[in-house]
Amino acid sequence: MRATPLLPGPRIEIILAGSGGQGMILAGLILAEAAGLYDGRQVAMVQNYGPEARGGTSKAEVILSDQTIDYPLCTAVDVLLALTQEAADVYHGDLKPGGWLIVDQELVPHPPLASAISLPFTRTARRKLKREMVTNVVALGFLSGYTGLVTKKGMERALLSRIPLASREMNKKALRLGSRLATAYQNAVPGARPETDSNEI
Amino acid sequence: MRATPLLPGPRIEIILAGSGGQGMILAGLILAEAAGLYDGRQVAMVQNYGPEARGGTSKAEVILSDQTIDYPLCTAVDVLLALTQEAADVYHGDLKPGGWLIVDQELVPHPPLASAISLPFTRTARRKLKREMVTNVVALGFLSGYTGLVTKKGMERALLSRIPLASREMNKKALRLGSRLATAYQNAVPGARPETDSNEI
Repeated sequence: MRATPLLPGPRIEIILAGSGGQGMILAGLILAEAAGLYDGRQVAMVQNYGPEARGGTSKAEVILSDQTIDYPLCTAVDVLLALTQEAADVYHGDLKPGGWLIVDQELVPHPPLASAISLPFTRTARRKLKREMVTNVVALGFLSGYTGLVTKKGMERALLSRIPLASREMNKKALRLGSRLATAYQNAVPGARPETDSNEI
Repeated sequence: MRATPLLPGPRIEIILAGSGGQGMILAGLILAEAAGLYDGRQVAMVQNYGPEARGGTSKAEVILSDQTIDYPLCTAVDVLLALTQEAADVYHGDLKPGGWLIVDQELVPHPPLASAISLPFTRTARRKLKREMVTNVVALGFLSGYTGLVTKKGMERALLSRIPLASREMNKKALRLGSRLATAYQNAVPGARPETDSNEI
């Protein structure tokens, strides 16, 4: 239900948040490396590790720009991907007006914003791939396809450089499924397609 | 030549800097995960990626604490590991008084501080392992052994979770060689051993 172009912009702030076991930091690294090493953006990333990282809320902040990034912390978030209700509740206040809250349909049953974009990432990973573990990669595929912030090619290259050889096919499928969710969502929701060239910040 | 105890302290700031190809961000991730996931510290990490990441100066900032980290950026750096002359020149000004500058003997021929700790990381990787690629891991082994900021066990677990199975033995050897450099340095230089329990922040 949104037609506000996210891009181009001089600075895009993204938060990926979930519980410790959901691989949000890995997802952030893949997003950051896709944009920085393969798409040629300037990228800054901040993440936290700690005793709670295996259980409580875990988050990665990624900032993309076509200019030098002077301040690497999020100040007005453009996109929040939240894979738990707690993550959505805690971080949606950091979104700037018109920022996008993207949540998992099952794990965030009560999105804190009416404008939330709610997708079946977990269900897709479980039903189509029999592995909830790749929910983060399905979500990355959606992010890439829906926001156009990183190219699909860059995302795939960054993903493949980060995961064991044995799970390549599974992860590539997860990325594609996420990308298809984006297409399906854009077709189903009038005005959902960001009005921008997907390769331009 | 230093007897100032680095630890205990409520907040320890570390910068790992080098050229794009030297794996400083990977080294930062390993250090951060060793401290955060295995040693049970609070850890924040900031890194940058960009078009220059394959060539120019690349850096990772890692902050360790036993308390919640409110501000994840470096403000007064305790330890700077610099693997290029440029990295040493650019970042030594961020060190707090008494902070430690650790440099590679070959790649930083003119340490900008007289107190610099200069070690043959590159030469060790090349001569003992025939692979300069693991210079970053040798340096991590030194950091662990010399500063006691992270346990050897934590470092090894974090390292092994980040590298391909085929290069496990090579990397474990690199870590051990770095640790031996620390012991040799501590024995050779009077007062070089940090006066602290190596497992306490």
